[in-house]
Amino acid sequence: MPTLSVFMDVPLAHKLEGSLLKTYKQDDYPNKIFLAYRVCMTNEGHPWVSLVVQKTRLQVSQDPSLNYEYLPTMGLKSFIQASLALLFGKHSQAIVENRVGGVHTVGDSGAFQLGVQFLIAWHKDARIVYIISSQKELHGLIFQDMGFTVYEYSIWDPKKLCMDPDILLNVVESKQIFPFFDIPCQGLYTSDLEEDTRILQYFVSQGFEFFCSQSLSKNFGIYDEGVGILVVVAVNNQQLLCVLSQLEGLAQALWLNPPNTGARIITSILSNPALLGEWKQSLKEVVENIMLTKEKVKEKLRLLGTPGSWGHITEQSGTHGYLGLNSQQVEYLVRKKHIYIPKNGQINFSCINANNINYITEGINEAVLLAESSEMCLPKEKKTLIGIKL
Amino acid sequence: MPTLSVFMDVPLAHKLEGSLLKTYKQDDYPNKIFLAYRVCMTNEGHPWVSLVVQKTRLQVSQDPSLNYEYLPTMGLKSFIQASLALLFGKHSQAIVENRVGGVHTVGDSGAFQLGVQFLIAWHKDARIVYIISSQKELHGLIFQDMGFTVYEYSIWDPKKLCMDPDILLNVVESKQIFPFFDIPCQGLYTSDLEEDTRILQYFVSQGFEFFCSQSLSKNFGIYDEGVGILVVVAVNNQQLLCVLSQLEGLAQALWLNPPNTGARIITSILSNPALLGEWKQSLKEVVENIMLTKEKVKEKLRLLGTPGSWGHITEQSGTHGYLGLNSQQVEYLVRKKHIYIPKNGQINFSCINANNINYITEGINEAVLLAESSEMCLPKEKKTLIGIKL
Repeated sequence: MPTLSVFMDVPLAHKLEGSLLKTYKQDDYPNKIFLAYRVCMTNEGHPWVSLVVQKTRLQVSQDPSLNYEYLPTMGLKSFIQASLALLFGKHSQAIVENRVGGVHTVGDSGAFQLGVQFLIAWHKDARIVYIISSQKELHGLIFQDMGFTVYEYSIWDPKKLCMDPDILLNVVESKQIFPFFDIPCQGLYTSDLEEDTRILQYFVSQGFEFFCSQSLSKNFGIYDEGVGILVVVAVNNQQLLCVLSQLEGLAQALWLNPPNTGARIITSILSNPALLGEWKQSLKEVVENIMLTKEKVKEKLRLLGTPGSWGHITEQSGTHGYLGLNSQQVEYLVRKKHIYIPKNGQINFSCINANNINYITEGINEAVLLAESSEMCLPKEKKTLIGIKL
Repeated sequence: MPTLSVFMDVPLAHKLEGSLLKTYKQDDYPNKIFLAYRVCMTNEGHPWVSLVVQKTRLQVSQDPSLNYEYLPTMGLKSFIQASLALLFGKHSQAIVENRVGGVHTVGDSGAFQLGVQFLIAWHKDARIVYIISSQKELHGLIFQDMGFTVYEYSIWDPKKLCMDPDILLNVVESKQIFPFFDIPCQGLYTSDLEEDTRILQYFVSQGFEFFCSQSLSKNFGIYDEGVGILVVVAVNNQQLLCVLSQLEGLAQALWLNPPNTGARIITSILSNPALLGEWKQSLKEVVENIMLTKEKVKEKLRLLGTPGSWGHITEQSGTHGYLGLNSQQVEYLVRKKHIYIPKNGQINFSCINANNINYITEGINEAVLLAESSEMCLPKEKKTLIGIKL
């Protein structure tokens, strides 16, 4: 009988994330507010689920023709096809040329895990990653854990106040890096599905090969199913098939079979024009609602006479955006007002509703009056590109 | 614009598995039969789903009180607790002592992937794995792909015709290997949930630390959700918490959040005594039905006067078992009779039903008459232990 633990050298790990949420949950203050949820919230403060998803979920669970057999390792074929068409457009040249494919992946980081395992296997020296983004924390830590040296890179031009895809392209070419895009919530930026993936079309049109992590959890409100795809764009069909076949082996060791429920619901919606229309409409409503919230926040700060210009709030698209507060102001809001905001001041605007907007804007006003902000230049777009040096 | 493919050195991968199924699907013969499905089949030739699962699936999808928020990285807490109680028994000493824990994992290989990543991270020299099993193919290939040298090890005593846990224990101690059990379908061997995990209780009672991949997809018939747990048994609670905290970091990079649907259904059943009773009853019916099929196969071979003793068919427990055919006989069945059987002659007995039993037994009879079997010694138990040399 063994006496010493095999695990005796294993220490308690530092938490990667979640400590803000933990502190929030332990806070007894009755009016505490958490503005850093990853999911899109309704006006009632619940996680948003597209109504058409609820309906389809019920239909799927009542359908006697469905079986519950293992999915193949590559996943649900119809799901992959429908999702790729959503990402690139049905008439995408790359899809027509059969050089775009995908693997059905698991959770929000499964596509990155699978893609990076492939790149390490075939480019053994790949150990440097450039994260070109305004919201980089989780990605960076994951790559660090996988043994990469992580460089953060901003392509935001503070003079032109824009993110020029040409600058992005130059970066990728001059540093010889392999692009790995992250599309976490297509349709939740501008509600225009095509507009939200324009950067991909641009890279395709320039003949680049790349990977993309396409998540479909947030834009359908199926957060707990973590449905995604590792998208592969190759120069031709032959190369694509080679890459996919190697990815299959890796996915087999990772999870063997991806889960079905989320993919089944999404496929039902994407392949039915009426349901697709309902889903698009629900995206539009969510995006409009968030924009309205941002307008209200800006207007309330104006009425309070809060120093500073708050135009950046409404200039940013998507659920998450920067308030433009410095770390002192953020700390004031967390400690004194029990309004929980990440250190970088990026909040989830869908967490603001009629019940808490006054408390939040008054809190911001107090924070700014106590510690006036230095002029800040905030990125208005949140596209993320992971560049891996091969 | 790049001209050469980044993927130009990537060849087409060899298939790990599935080629038998592929050949079967491409076969035009009308009476072809596939006896190698991984899932348990009904008499009607459909994948078996416990009726209580269907009912619970519907309830869950109609429950307005449920939300679809992200699960924490460690997974659904109530699911882990209920599954550990199922595995070790509610009054297990190790559970009472708070030294058993688990991480909610994804698919059929997620628990292995996570556990092995941990072992590699904390025991950098771990590169040898012993697979102590009678059904080793997939495990072995996965470990090989992860850079391990794989040794196959049989603890089947052909004289005593049994697998003695004491022999297993001696192996583990003498080779200083870390045990990693695989419990793929508790309850589908003997229909006695406790009996099917007796080997774990034994290792716990001997004070061992170990990992275990607990899959709950097959015994609930939720194959397409791939629900599992990486079970950790440590010497004390402090060590357990350290290990779990490190596993959380790895799971975050692997998938970030496990899928919910399967876990939710299983938890609803395990925590409701009435539903639990229905599930146990359905397991009993399945196991009895398989046993009846085996009896019928044996009786039909006896009536046909097939040379050889066929007692091993009914002596094996579980859905999958050895027919006891040699490779020549297997090849005859596949090529001449279109009865698809893996090379090792291990078939899924639940694929045999009233419609195909005569064709199958007559085929076996023909095969045996043409190429008589050499005496074989077949393991009757299918417990799998993965031992990792630390």
